[in-house]
Amino acid sequence: MCFEIRGRDMLARLGSIETKSGKFETPTLLPVINPSIQSINPRTLKTKFGCQALITNAYILKRKGDNHKGKTVHEVLDFDGVIMTDSGAYQILIYGEIDTTPAQIVNYQEHIATDIGTILDVPTNWRCARSYAKKTVDETIERAKQLAAIKTRNDILWVAPIQGGKHLDLVAFSARQSGMLPFQLHALGSPTTVMEEYRFETLVDMILTAKMNMPINRPLHLFGAGHPFMFALAVALGCDMFDSAAYALYARQNRYMTEYGTRRLDKLEYFPCSCPICTKSTPRDVVEMPSGEKQKALAMHNLYASFAELKRIKQSILEGRLWEHLEARSHAHPALLQALKKIRKYERFIEQHSPVTKRSGIFFFGATSLLRPELVRYRERFKERYLPTQENEILLLLPEPSTRPFHNAREIRQLIELIQRRFGEKKQIFHVCICAAPFGVVPLELDDVFPLSQNENVMPPDLQVIQTVAEQTKEYIERASCKKVVLVENVEISEGMISETCKRVKRKGLSITTLAVEKALNDKAQENIVDVLQKLVA
Amino acid sequence: MCFEIRGRDMLARLGSIETKSGKFETPTLLPVINPSIQSINPRTLKTKFGCQALITNAYILKRKGDNHKGKTVHEVLDFDGVIMTDSGAYQILIYGEIDTTPAQIVNYQEHIATDIGTILDVPTNWRCARSYAKKTVDETIERAKQLAAIKTRNDILWVAPIQGGKHLDLVAFSARQSGMLPFQLHALGSPTTVMEEYRFETLVDMILTAKMNMPINRPLHLFGAGHPFMFALAVALGCDMFDSAAYALYARQNRYMTEYGTRRLDKLEYFPCSCPICTKSTPRDVVEMPSGEKQKALAMHNLYASFAELKRIKQSILEGRLWEHLEARSHAHPALLQALKKIRKYERFIEQHSPVTKRSGIFFFGATSLLRPELVRYRERFKERYLPTQENEILLLLPEPSTRPFHNAREIRQLIELIQRRFGEKKQIFHVCICAAPFGVVPLELDDVFPLSQNENVMPPDLQVIQTVAEQTKEYIERASCKKVVLVENVEISEGMISETCKRVKRKGLSITTLAVEKALNDKAQENIVDVLQKLVA
Repeated sequence: MCFEIRGRDMLARLGSIETKSGKFETPTLLPVINPSIQSINPRTLKTKFGCQALITNAYILKRKGDNHKGKTVHEVLDFDGVIMTDSGAYQILIYGEIDTTPAQIVNYQEHIATDIGTILDVPTNWRCARSYAKKTVDETIERAKQLAAIKTRNDILWVAPIQGGKHLDLVAFSARQSGMLPFQLHALGSPTTVMEEYRFETLVDMILTAKMNMPINRPLHLFGAGHPFMFALAVALGCDMFDSAAYALYARQNRYMTEYGTRRLDKLEYFPCSCPICTKSTPRDVVEMPSGEKQKALAMHNLYASFAELKRIKQSILEGRLWEHLEARSHAHPALLQALKKIRKYERFIEQHSPVTKRSGIFFFGATSLLRPELVRYRERFKERYLPTQENEILLLLPEPSTRPFHNAREIRQLIELIQRRFGEKKQIFHVCICAAPFGVVPLELDDVFPLSQNENVMPPDLQVIQTVAEQTKEYIERASCKKVVLVENVEISEGMISETCKRVKRKGLSITTLAVEKALNDKAQENIVDVLQKLVA
Repeated sequence: MCFEIRGRDMLARLGSIETKSGKFETPTLLPVINPSIQSINPRTLKTKFGCQALITNAYILKRKGDNHKGKTVHEVLDFDGVIMTDSGAYQILIYGEIDTTPAQIVNYQEHIATDIGTILDVPTNWRCARSYAKKTVDETIERAKQLAAIKTRNDILWVAPIQGGKHLDLVAFSARQSGMLPFQLHALGSPTTVMEEYRFETLVDMILTAKMNMPINRPLHLFGAGHPFMFALAVALGCDMFDSAAYALYARQNRYMTEYGTRRLDKLEYFPCSCPICTKSTPRDVVEMPSGEKQKALAMHNLYASFAELKRIKQSILEGRLWEHLEARSHAHPALLQALKKIRKYERFIEQHSPVTKRSGIFFFGATSLLRPELVRYRERFKERYLPTQENEILLLLPEPSTRPFHNAREIRQLIELIQRRFGEKKQIFHVCICAAPFGVVPLELDDVFPLSQNENVMPPDLQVIQTVAEQTKEYIERASCKKVVLVENVEISEGMISETCKRVKRKGLSITTLAVEKALNDKAQENIVDVLQKLVA
């Protein structure tokens, strides 16, 4: 297998892909190199940016190929790293038709000794009808099937594009069908319009549909994605590679990339960046440069910004804090946060493929954080695997103390001791749980399990977080078979919302006693609780 | 006046301070220069980092002063930019006492020709009792009063430190008292422990208390704040200057600063940064450097990271998107987001000093964004200045359409036309408003006013946002004098929460008719609404 993985977080993989020209690390951006016009040449990409892989267009190279007959693409571009070639499909999308055949393009890519080749797929136009979209998918799969018969070398990795556009059933079909063929990589086609129009929600749908239907252990390339402000989202959803000419195209239009969006050069008074370009010049300096120099400076900055964001993402994967990074980045634009929230639809799939343990605790910020795989996992496992409070027990639900683990908090220890003194052996009939944001019900005997005590919170929590805790509590009471529940609620934080919600539990013979406290469980509150328990036992 | 302001956002000011050695731009970090040990010398600070001002310690300089008698501090440090001097107060905090007097320190600062001098204040220790805190405040004010009698030059700007620590009434007293004296700058003392222990909520209290009680047109310096991850918060609350040795101290401990926290060098596999240090080396390269070189590389990176964050903040102020920047940064740690939420306590003050218009629309993300000054302002002004629906009118509350401005949305235009056709001149009795997230009630005739149509949202909104809209709607109905209300709610988004909340309105003779719709107001829904209106008019 050419794809080796050494780190994971959410669906992201920190890995490397081996080709005949060496390895390159993923996730990565493959800068698009136009064989004719280059604001930054391939050699500079390697030396200044540590760029291990780039992409160029086999179709364009083939058309103007007379003057470099017999040369490999590495020789033509003067680059000894990994070279991926695209097939001209983008030109089909733009111009409608091109003057070559699928077999010719495969042969040509073998001829120039590309490292990663792409079959000539038929892109699904964003605004096309479903029937046409279906045709592009079928034809692309047909061409993918033909590859085996056409190709003559075995040292090239081949990419099978996944088409279908916004028609998710077609994306699924395309991913499943091409996934059955012996390709080393897949690529999601046609997302350019989606990204240009900030339809990141649709992008989430497209990427997840592809991921859920393709072999998950193959790398996924996202065509035409080149803006650092959406790298975190795409990587978290399992994209391993991007390619884009945006760094250069933007530069030509005086557009400056940041990890939170694009700015026009003439609107900047300060460069919001520490890259070598932005630390040695001001926006005014760059505006006043001769056109070629200005373009180059902007293209360099755009690449520095892109690669820095990729390094941030890679380090976040290793630290297990990609979610935190993603949540911060999603505050670049409401459309990005809306897209992040869309993952709710895929939360089980993402959870199943996310790592179970982490090096360090997790940060919990509010409503959006409820979608973290760690929380989805806790809710699911607790529901499916945790044996609830039994018929002969009394369920005691307590508000969360301010220190972790809960069972070690002073007020909880005191209360447990008080129960021990009052009830002796009989204390076994009490099942003590904490109603804790953002988890819901946390049985005291479980609170050492990651991440129940390994997290940092914002207090007081958002209304939506409190409601989630309330709903989880209600569900648990419904599921338990006990006849008696004592619910102690910190009304300063949840304003009676948990008791209110639990009143709606419909289960025969159940009695719920609610007690309101403010702030911590002080001595008086503890006495109160034990008195209530005494009455219930009697 | 030495302080000139050319841009504002929230309480932040983009400005410049004029001294006898020239101007420097604010907000800025003044790197602490230790006269004896320098990992980066003052000349490099200026050439490589564009650093216009630095701070050094007059007390330390004075103690070892024999070998530079007669020289100015600029000559001693080889720096021709602006130099601020601290007085040794930090040394009092650490060592308890120092061997100099307030008058000597003032004289010495004049002698070495500092540009910005600090009186010898008495810092309030974080853990000290209130009575001691009061003493430090009184003594500091006493010494501030003495300055006029001691000083002999008029070309030095003087800083009056504000003490009091966590005792906010003392901070207020200290700010008011020293604000009455003829100082050019103020500085908030003693926040180091607060910052080290991530008590950013307390920092918010301290800064806002100082701001509300000092002359707002004087610059405010925050002592000992040197981590880029809290610059945005401090600047947004009105801090203009920071000083810190953290860039160098951290470097000595192999600690690497980022705008989202600190990392240990040996835990990094990738530098999450694009600065000149981080683009030309890997963490392993730096680990393997000789100790002095490693320290210098880390200190350089830490400074690049700090100054880049300041540039981002300055550009954000100019773009009017400091809130967006702050909200993204607050996702570095829950303690920061909790601190941001604390500004609710000061929302009126912040709103009153925030700019009323902006170059561009605002981004609205969720519960936290409800605290934006623009929203606070709308809620307040709407309540105080908007004449509500009159007794002889019928209030028609509609769900928000997906396009802005609301009155131009197709469905709203259609409905208005339908009402016109059905009721002719009589349509005047209907007062049409939109229940719009995050604002609450937006009268159709107002929806062009900034930022009612100039914003981007996350849909569907958080529960807390919906509740806010519901509460605002309820308040408006209570305030209006009309007898009849027709409330049309998009239950797909707000799940009946607005109707539910408005049921609690207690006003005599009021009738509320509620209608539930899903998604947009289609033809059928429009007919329905008009039928209901017809019945009410009849």
